[in-house]
Amino acid sequence: MLFMVEMDLDVPWDIDKTVFEDMKAREKARSHELQRAGKWPHIWRVAGRYANVSIFDVESAGELHDIMMSLPLYPFMTVKVTALCRHPSDINQDD
Amino acid sequence: MLFMVEMDLDVPWDIDKTVFEDMKAREKARSHELQRAGKWPHIWRVAGRYANVSIFDVESAGELHDIMMSLPLYPFMTVKVTALCRHPSDINQDD
Amino acid sequence: MLFMVEMDLDVPWDIDKTVFEDMKAREKARSHELQRAGKWPHIWRVAGRYANVSIFDVESAGELHDIMMSLPLYPFMTVKVTALCRHPSDINQDD
Amino acid sequence: MLFMVEMDLDVPWDIDKTVFEDMKAREKARSHELQRAGKWPHIWRVAGRYANVSIFDVESAGELHDIMMSLPLYPFMTVKVTALCRHPSDINQDD
Amino acid sequence: MLFMVEMDLDVPWDIDKTVFEDMKAREKARSHELQRAGKWPHIWRVAGRYANVSIFDVESAGELHDIMMSLPLYPFMTVKVTALCRHPSDINQDD
Amino acid sequence: MLFMVEMDLDVPWDIDKTVFEDMKAREKARSHELQRAGKWPHIWRVAGRYANVSIFDVESAGELHDIMMSLPLYPFMTVKVTALCRHPSDINQDD
Amino acid sequence: MLFMVEMDLDVPWDIDKTVFEDMKAREKARSHELQRAGKWPHIWRVAGRYANVSIFDVESAGELHDIMMSLPLYPFMTVKVTALCRHPSDINQDD
Amino acid sequence: MLFMVEMDLDVPWDIDKTVFEDMKAREKARSHELQRAGKWPHIWRVAGRYANVSIFDVESAGELHDIMMSLPLYPFMTVKVTALCRHPSDINQDD
Amino acid sequence: MLFMVEMDLDVPWDIDKTVFEDMKAREKARSHELQRAGKWPHIWRVAGRYANVSIFDVESAGELHDIMMSLPLYPFMTVKVTALCRHPSDINQDD
Amino acid sequence: MLFMVEMDLDVPWDIDKTVFEDMKAREKARSHELQRAGKWPHIWRVAGRYANVSIFDVESAGELHDIMMSLPLYPFMTVKVTALCRHPSDINQDD
Repeated sequence: MLFMVEMDLDVPWDIDKTVFEDMKAREKARSHELQRAGKWPHIWRVAGRYANVSIFDVESAGELHDIMMSLPLYPFMTVKVTALCRHPSDINQDD
Repeated sequence: MLFMVEMDLDVPWDIDKTVFEDMKAREKARSHELQRAGKWPHIWRVAGRYANVSIFDVESAGELHDIMMSLPLYPFMTVKVTALCRHPSDINQDD
Repeated sequence: MLFMVEMDLDVPWDIDKTVFEDMKAREKARSHELQRAGKWPHIWRVAGRYANVSIFDVESAGELHDIMMSLPLYPFMTVKVTALCRHPSDINQDD
Repeated sequence: MLFMVEMDLDVPWDIDKTVFEDMKAREKARSHELQRAGKWPHIWRVAGRYANVSIFDVESAGELHDIMMSLPLYPFMTVKVTALCRHPSDINQDD
Repeated sequence: MLFMVEMDLDVPWDIDKTVFEDMKAREKARSHELQRAGKWPHIWRVAGRYANVSIFDVESAGELHDIMMSLPLYPFMTVKVTALCRHPSDINQDD
Repeated sequence: MLFMVEMDLDVPWDIDKTVFEDMKAREKARSHELQRAGKWPHIWRVAGRYANVSIFDVESAGELHDIMMSLPLYPFMTVKVTALCRHPSDINQDD
Repeated sequence: MLFMVEMDLDVPWDIDKTVFEDMKAREKARSHELQRAGKWPHIWRVAGRYANVSIFDVESAGELHDIMMSLPLYPFMTVKVTALCRHPSDINQDD
Repeated sequence: MLFMVEMDLDVPWDIDKTVFEDMKAREKARSHELQRAGKWPHIWRVAGRYANVSIFDVESAGELHDIMMSLPLYPFMTVKVTALCRHPSDINQDD
Repeated sequence: MLFMVEMDLDVPWDIDKTVFEDMKAREKARSHELQRAGKWPHIWRVAGRYANVSIFDVESAGELHDIMMSLPLYPFMTVKVTALCRHPSDINQDD
Repeated sequence: MLFMVEMDLDVPWDIDKTVFEDMKAREKARSHELQRAGKWPHIWRVAGRYANVSIFDVESAGELHDIMMSLPLYPFMTVKVTALCRHPSDINQDD
């Protein structure tokens, strides 16, 4: 199952820098782990904003949920989820 | 340059079917042409709605504009454009 | 896979009554067919508005999409889709 | 009477973990109690977000209100309430 | 059960005057009938706009729905429904 | 003059309980005083949310303003004010 | 009583010019009549848009309503009404 | 140049009262100064809400900006600015 | 005076092509005339949408209004106007 | 590539003045640096609000992103990005 997830981050301006750097490092590690597992095939930065557009390829909606809840930066995110499916005009069979 | 384009279609319920089928056929042909040219690398259907999420890979914002204006179904679309760039956590070099 | 689909209908006030009654009859027949097949386990009327809240239980997001596109009244609908999953506090195993 | 209640949670990122775990445990216990009493027949997780969609089956709007005010996590919730009724296309008599 | 219903009307500027006057007369008659039956205890005009705020006192959400669908001007309305209950600070027992 | 006032309350989750109970007690006393004076003829709880819908019957817009500013819980409220007038379909002369 | 009324006009692009010019002439005449009567003390054009911001000084909300319904261009308007009162910082006694 | 400025205030409920009273006193003094200078010809309270609607008559957009930034309560305001001009239906030459 | 004007166009899909081409030609001529007069120093296309972002440099808000009303495509536009002024960080004296 | 970026600032009212003045000074220095490099050709103040409208001229969306993340006041900003391109009616070749 494919989902588009749009994540917008709003981080308190006066957060402790050490704490935040640690959260970001753990977020990056978790993201790499999920990308390598094929669960997170696309992640793009939204130009000019602390936000990303991601595509997830998961077994179930429940798996997507567990993934999102496992992200260290989730508490700062506003999240929008859109379920996707194959488009009839898509020329790729395996997208 | 990468852009995400979200297209939502609102077609008049009583449109002439022949006219609309012709428009859809031309839209599909144009989409295939752009996909084959590598300009439209991803197109996903939004599940349950007459809408799609697309990724365009173009030389310039002007090229994106010309592409969108060339789509036969553009007059029925509400369009949202988001400029994307490489995410620092992306493990792919050539995404 | 479970999806909540909220459908709001906006029908032109001066639509031909025979045409609309026929569309409603076909919508009802299609809804019954999908309910009997177990694809549409819940449908509730939103009190006071020409709208419903529905739960669909389908094999894939693509199947949901095909179902929605097959509804005769789809052209009058504004549709919102929400992917659902099991809640950790749910006491039912088979909901 | 049936109500759909959509609950979105926004929890401060730096809340004391012990306090929050205690609130969640009490929320779960209260939810189980209401589910067993038949007041809360459905609860679904919204995939990817700390949110749920619930159906309540209560004697009155006042009872719904008392239930919502009794939820330990209510102070973190944004709540949307929709009154539901039987849909004429529903094939179940006792939904 | 008490419901607040907010009705905003948007009537095509070029509607046939005879048709619309007939619809308004039937709307008024239906409103009077429901007021006399005690179902529609309050109706206020929103100052300066073709809109009203109403309170309905009905047996069930289903009865509210049937009432709203029976209003001749419903096709021109945007409707918002809010379920109400007794307020703990209300000094009237029988409001 | 009649006004509908919709009050939505958002109270910090970690407010000092004694302080808040005192504020609520003063709010209730002030509400009772205004109800007994005939200024606040209707107050309904919005089912499931910490919110109310109220009707005020005042001498002037200025009096409404002074009333609202005198409410102890005003600092937690999001307020929407709608000026009302008699509806031509209302069968009550003295509503 | 003072009200601010914001009127935004949306006129069909293909309206019959003679019909529309007649409506505008009647709107202007009605506006002049109300201005001379002191009911409509201020009217400003919103720069760059077919819209105005107006202040009405009327006996009651009902009078405001009758005035708005009497405007020939009302069917093309989106209207927002805000009840005003004297500001404590206003240095004018008779504003 | 005329501008309508709508100012909505949201003040933290637990602000130090002495600090806030001082800010309000300075705001009032600054408002009086600008009114006497003819820069702020109208200020109305929005009935029932801590908000105002104001008309400014300034030499330039830059002057409006400097005025707004000089208001002691600006940090609590949500501000909406609308550029106004003379309305062709206005019967006053010097409004 | 500087104004940013955002113009979004929504043209009926079935408009007579000759009529529309004539409107567009007159719009372009009017735009060129205003650009050459220095009134419309910047116009940019919004990539992917039938919309533009423009900067106008005019004597007054009234002049901006007359310009906008003179645009042949105005009836299809949704317009947002923002008054601008010199930014203190701008290094150009004559921008 | 041209981008319009709209930046709205919301600064906590009780921020330490020394800290904030330092942030503003660094923001101004960074802005000057980018203006001198030709990356930030236009910056306008939004009249009456702590906000600006800017035009950036960059090599890529990634460069825009790096610029925005380098702004010392970014943590207080709500940012909207719009990709622009040359307008066919623009009479300037090198805008």
